[in-house]
Amino acid sequence: MPIKIDPIVSALADTVPFVAPEETERAKGVVFKARLGANEGNFGPASAAVAAIQKAASDDIWKYCDPTAFELRQALSRRLNIDLDEVVCGPGIDGLLGLIVRIFSSPGDTILTSLGAYPTFNYHVHAYGRTLKTLPYKAFREDLEGLAQLTREQRVSIVYVSNPDNPMGTWWRADAVEAFLNAVSPNTLIILDEAYGETAPDGTLPPIDTGRPNLIRLRTFSKAYGLAGLRVGYAFGNRELVKLFHRVRDHFGVNVMAQKAALASLDATKWLAEAIEQIADGRDRIAKIARDNNLDPIASATNFVTIDCKADGDFAAGILQRLADHGVFVRKPMAPGLDRCVRISVGRKEELDHLEAVLPQVL
Amino acid sequence: MPIKIDPIVSALADTVPFVAPEETERAKGVVFKARLGANEGNFGPASAAVAAIQKAASDDIWKYCDPTAFELRQALSRRLNIDLDEVVCGPGIDGLLGLIVRIFSSPGDTILTSLGAYPTFNYHVHAYGRTLKTLPYKAFREDLEGLAQLTREQRVSIVYVSNPDNPMGTWWRADAVEAFLNAVSPNTLIILDEAYGETAPDGTLPPIDTGRPNLIRLRTFSKAYGLAGLRVGYAFGNRELVKLFHRVRDHFGVNVMAQKAALASLDATKWLAEAIEQIADGRDRIAKIARDNNLDPIASATNFVTIDCKADGDFAAGILQRLADHGVFVRKPMAPGLDRCVRISVGRKEELDHLEAVLPQVL
Repeated sequence: MPIKIDPIVSALADTVPFVAPEETERAKGVVFKARLGANEGNFGPASAAVAAIQKAASDDIWKYCDPTAFELRQALSRRLNIDLDEVVCGPGIDGLLGLIVRIFSSPGDTILTSLGAYPTFNYHVHAYGRTLKTLPYKAFREDLEGLAQLTREQRVSIVYVSNPDNPMGTWWRADAVEAFLNAVSPNTLIILDEAYGETAPDGTLPPIDTGRPNLIRLRTFSKAYGLAGLRVGYAFGNRELVKLFHRVRDHFGVNVMAQKAALASLDATKWLAEAIEQIADGRDRIAKIARDNNLDPIASATNFVTIDCKADGDFAAGILQRLADHGVFVRKPMAPGLDRCVRISVGRKEELDHLEAVLPQVL
Repeated sequence: MPIKIDPIVSALADTVPFVAPEETERAKGVVFKARLGANEGNFGPASAAVAAIQKAASDDIWKYCDPTAFELRQALSRRLNIDLDEVVCGPGIDGLLGLIVRIFSSPGDTILTSLGAYPTFNYHVHAYGRTLKTLPYKAFREDLEGLAQLTREQRVSIVYVSNPDNPMGTWWRADAVEAFLNAVSPNTLIILDEAYGETAPDGTLPPIDTGRPNLIRLRTFSKAYGLAGLRVGYAFGNRELVKLFHRVRDHFGVNVMAQKAALASLDATKWLAEAIEQIADGRDRIAKIARDNNLDPIASATNFVTIDCKADGDFAAGILQRLADHGVFVRKPMAPGLDRCVRISVGRKEELDHLEAVLPQVL
């Protein structure tokens, strides 16, 4: 083309991190009866969030949203017991991950993650022309010791870890995470993605210490809070790291509905406790369905259960495909060693009823 | 810092493109009585958009939004009479501008705009380490001939033009725009920002021709459609350009509310016609208020009127400041030659009543 295209973009393949269930539905001409593939909050958001949205719909949507997300950040900083300038909101963790790659690395730099971990992080790494290095999972858990060691052995700009983990649902206790944070090279920025933090057992999330000069933690309203469609997450850490986001981020990027609904959700503590209990019950039920069908559920700290189908990747892919044919949307890990599993999100009772009914036929 | 910070980000100043009125309100401890500074749709959105949001609030927000924005893109492509793969949605024009800079230029490249044009575009140019070159306005209009000539005289990756223009409200007729498109170097990507296209007189927007290999046009639901807080805009043009967005964009970046409300708004054609009429009436009223106070309104094709205060920049800045003290939020152009003006958005009747009441005291 005669116009300039940045060589990094020019060299990229035409791939997307996820194919949406809506796209599959359009292609198949059906609507999924059970939407269990994206780890959403299938029970829906807090009623306070819905009320906040309905009020904003008539009062606020014509106005540009507050570019500083002041009220939401204020509430978050109080909740986390940190300062206002130690937290920044973004359009979901996805948007924040892109910014982190852009700010804390340069083209060609090595960025480290686990083989089979969050595809959208990898997407951003490639899209900014950075070099992705991966380390396999060990026993379905991220290999924290191995990751930390690699950052000490070679120049790694960023290391990405999620705890609890997606797509496996496994987790490390806070002391193991802290040992990891201490073991990583001080030259490496650590992303600790806690998207599933709310559903994890006590003792999973390490204490907050914004004094650490190389740690950014990420949380979201897309999972336990049931607001995935609105796009709102947040990053927190040392203020010297946080202030860099404001130099490059899209300042109106967190829409007004997201800000209002997230703020209202934060106060719905009783609702959240019940939602977390429902999610735990759902995990137990999925695990039971798996065992009843002679599959092995992996213990999970998230709003999904990953199930070892005890054969190869093709076998698991076949299960996925036939579940889709029976109206069940699920996804699966793709990396060697993990790909014999399928990942099933906690859904509403009728969705899990449907799963339970069709799984024996599928197998 | 021991961790890596990309040198482009490291070199950036801590600036933001706009200070939000909410921030001024918090600093002053007041709420603006008239919000006339951000060219929003003060009459609010179509009732169909509000209804769509209220429905989505209970039904859809727990789900990730459709990353392809299929239904909205389908409706837009029909409306524009182009193919589905010739349009891409984004989180407002702001978000799309960032992507365009990222895709269609490289660090150090020269990007051309008018001196005093849209600050958020300049923000993205700097934030990606590109070099901004500016050409002054001529008689309060963008100098299309001068801009085109510059692209032929030196290597310019991108040229940015808005028509109708912000912050001046002026516009070029479609034939002048087409002459510009033809005169720009084929090596330069043209951004034609038509954020205010809906409020422009017939004959302002050139015919759509997605065959042009170097043109991307931008439109938004933030202005006439009254959905600024939701963040949804779109880019359209040659499919070879549009496909590049999908390689780097945040795929869930257009939230579910934005998709649903925009889709519903597109069908509200009768409402839109009335809104445009209200905006035209508001422009007339602002112009009359200006003339009644011995100021010179500039003819506008937008939802605001820029007013020549007929003295210097300090004088206009004083008016801005005292309007704020009287509860009126407005903004002003900052570039030499334009900075003697203030820019007043069309507001609701009570907002313009308040402006009319306080302006004589302010002067």
